[in-house]
Amino acid sequence: MDSALNIIVVEQDRERAMLIVDALREAGQMRIQVIGSGVGLARRVAETRPDLVLIDAGDPSRDVLEELTLAAGPMERPVAMFVDRADQGLTRAAIEAGVSAYVVGGLQPARIHPILDAAIARFHLFARMRAELAATKAALEERKVIDRAKGLLMRAKGIGEEEAYALLRKTAMDQGKRLADLAQAIVTAADLLR
Amino acid sequence: MDSALNIIVVEQDRERAMLIVDALREAGQMRIQVIGSGVGLARRVAETRPDLVLIDAGDPSRDVLEELTLAAGPMERPVAMFVDRADQGLTRAAIEAGVSAYVVGGLQPARIHPILDAAIARFHLFARMRAELAATKAALEERKVIDRAKGLLMRAKGIGEEEAYALLRKTAMDQGKRLADLAQAIVTAADLLR
Repeated sequence: MDSALNIIVVEQDRERAMLIVDALREAGQMRIQVIGSGVGLARRVAETRPDLVLIDAGDPSRDVLEELTLAAGPMERPVAMFVDRADQGLTRAAIEAGVSAYVVGGLQPARIHPILDAAIARFHLFARMRAELAATKAALEERKVIDRAKGLLMRAKGIGEEEAYALLRKTAMDQGKRLADLAQAIVTAADLLR
Repeated sequence: MDSALNIIVVEQDRERAMLIVDALREAGQMRIQVIGSGVGLARRVAETRPDLVLIDAGDPSRDVLEELTLAAGPMERPVAMFVDRADQGLTRAAIEAGVSAYVVGGLQPARIHPILDAAIARFHLFARMRAELAATKAALEERKVIDRAKGLLMRAKGIGEEEAYALLRKTAMDQGKRLADLAQAIVTAADLLR
């Protein structure tokens, strides 16, 4: 685990909270905030933007599990959740919601370190894939818009595809705009003017 | 965990293997094959196409971990790996390679069931994302090819964009081909003929 992590721990039991903090401190320099319940977790997360959230959820209902997960923001940071009891439905729900580590069988402080390592690695793997998917989708959307703008220019000016593309590129460059943004402006204007 | 799963267990210790098999059987109807080491795992996986592979890896070197992971095929099925010792580098490597559950601290048969549930849920989540990414990339590639074909037709026939697209669609339909495949054929032909 990298040091100087900013961690929020949600743990109701004060004694267990101290054991967790000790186990975390052994792994390196960390800023650790402990809160006693999930109430206020969302606000605390928004304020301090932690690098990781560790939740001892005990024996949560599905609603509580959903709230905790949402509050912890599992798309923005690794979230490790510990529950006492096995429940296939809850396990699936937590993992689908993006929880990076979901550990059944209670929180044993000695096991925290490798679990957080795994949670961090899994979070980054998943975040990379999500970023790649978002970039590919954006590229596809931009391509559609650029092609529409190109087609509009070809028709309006009676020019070929390469010429239309060159004109788009040159205009974007002259105006200091992104090609996709210029294309969007052309498409919007054409829609308005027709 | 769903029943009637076909599972391969890699476990050197015969006694522990029996405990694992018992724990798995408790969770439902399963076909379980136990092999004593990773030697032959790849062949066994290829032959029986298991729904899940469970590996008690003990204290593996990085090379052994890589071989086991590769043999288990973590892109095709959930792979749950249990190791005895924490090692941040190995944890990362295993997770990056696609291992769905990576558990440090040895294999406790009583904990298997929820771990496999989590592994299965995580595998499906990841497989869905990979499929979506692959589909989006394919759509982007197809769009590029279709646009090139459209441009070639526009230039060759002196027609507009919509007309070129309509011609492509009609031809594809008449020939019972996918639009993208027809477009690829046109682009290839044009490249050859020019």
